[in-house]
Amino acid sequence: MKVNFGAAKIGKYATSESGDTLEMIERPHGGLSMVLVDGQRSGKSAKTISNVVARKAIQLLAEGVRDGAAARAAHDYLYTYRKGKVSATLNILSVDTYTKTIVISRNNESPVIIYTPDQGLQLLDQPSRSVGVYRHTKPVISEIPIVEGALAIVFTDGLRHAGTLSGNEAYDPVKAMDHIIADGMVDAQCVADRLLREAVERDDGRDDISVLVISVTGNENGSQVRRLNGTIPL
Amino acid sequence: MKVNFGAAKIGKYATSESGDTLEMIERPHGGLSMVLVDGQRSGKSAKTISNVVARKAIQLLAEGVRDGAAARAAHDYLYTYRKGKVSATLNILSVDTYTKTIVISRNNESPVIIYTPDQGLQLLDQPSRSVGVYRHTKPVISEIPIVEGALAIVFTDGLRHAGTLSGNEAYDPVKAMDHIIADGMVDAQCVADRLLREAVERDDGRDDISVLVISVTGNENGSQVRRLNGTIPL
Repeated sequence: MKVNFGAAKIGKYATSESGDTLEMIERPHGGLSMVLVDGQRSGKSAKTISNVVARKAIQLLAEGVRDGAAARAAHDYLYTYRKGKVSATLNILSVDTYTKTIVISRNNESPVIIYTPDQGLQLLDQPSRSVGVYRHTKPVISEIPIVEGALAIVFTDGLRHAGTLSGNEAYDPVKAMDHIIADGMVDAQCVADRLLREAVERDDGRDDISVLVISVTGNENGSQVRRLNGTIPL
Repeated sequence: MKVNFGAAKIGKYATSESGDTLEMIERPHGGLSMVLVDGQRSGKSAKTISNVVARKAIQLLAEGVRDGAAARAAHDYLYTYRKGKVSATLNILSVDTYTKTIVISRNNESPVIIYTPDQGLQLLDQPSRSVGVYRHTKPVISEIPIVEGALAIVFTDGLRHAGTLSGNEAYDPVKAMDHIIADGMVDAQCVADRLLREAVERDDGRDDISVLVISVTGNENGSQVRRLNGTIPL
């Protein structure tokens, strides 16, 4: 098997940068973690907040700290640093090659979508709070086995609210995933790109949107090469 | 324009993991930095060293510390932590969207290859020392403007020594880049994959090899989407 990840991220129209921060780090016990943070407000101030929260989580994950503790620490840090006045959503998506699971940590009202061939589409939508505002905030953590065909889709608010700002119906990522699975699309980057594109079309780019996808596929040629690539428009 | 990056990484045959560590982080003033570290020896012990050095550099870069200072600090940290007994090569490759340059930092005997349409292929091969062993080690830093067609290729020792372990002629990455440029290949991941594949064929996978490529291309459709993707074989 191999684990593929793909992320697509766009800033609100006419802001110089997205308020969302996405970072990735190797897990010292094997695998990797991706951290996606959406800072309150937009533009520079949102970016500063999301950067601080993502940095704290990444730094701890890099040292081998478990996901739940890293999420709590990132909350405590923002809560202390900004005195409970600023919030951010925080998702940690980890591929843990030691436990052979995908670990999904949510401090975000937005749900996470998962798919396994056995169980079909599921929504991880237990009540969950953003970090930074309430004293003892903790993440909601789910774990799914790494099996061929599995998918996990994490996104910031902008995705599911796309459309509402221009008075259209809100974009429905679950319905979109239904189509994507029916189409047999398994490439993580293609899935992320399609969700982002559909949402942007709905709203003309009125919000920051980030989408992060993990997919597990077969490794037909048995290649042991790890790959990492990306694009930054200037 | 857009900046594309691509990395390919493989562990020595029959070791569970590569001793090389590659990490990436967003630069708070804009752009991103990639850190590639090759720890002395192979297997677990090399991985522990490369992880510590990469983590220190990444942590500082994430806080806005400039590349030269981050490289010095990573050296000081390893030198102190392992009492000057362990070395690691360290390369930092940064896309600085504020200065509009690619910044290449070397603590590595292995050269870095750069290409610009104006100057053609150049080898950055000023004498440079690994981190960890000599008291006041500092990086050799070069900077090239971000112009369309520019390429930067960073690699660990395994690439240019490929072939020698099985008694063949050493793989020549510069000659390989000559062919790649003649072929008009500009996709960063394709370039990284080709260099890695050719080197592995030469040596039957007897060493850890990592290749990291940055390419600057036009942005024909004007897309503002940032993308990040990758693959981990399990």
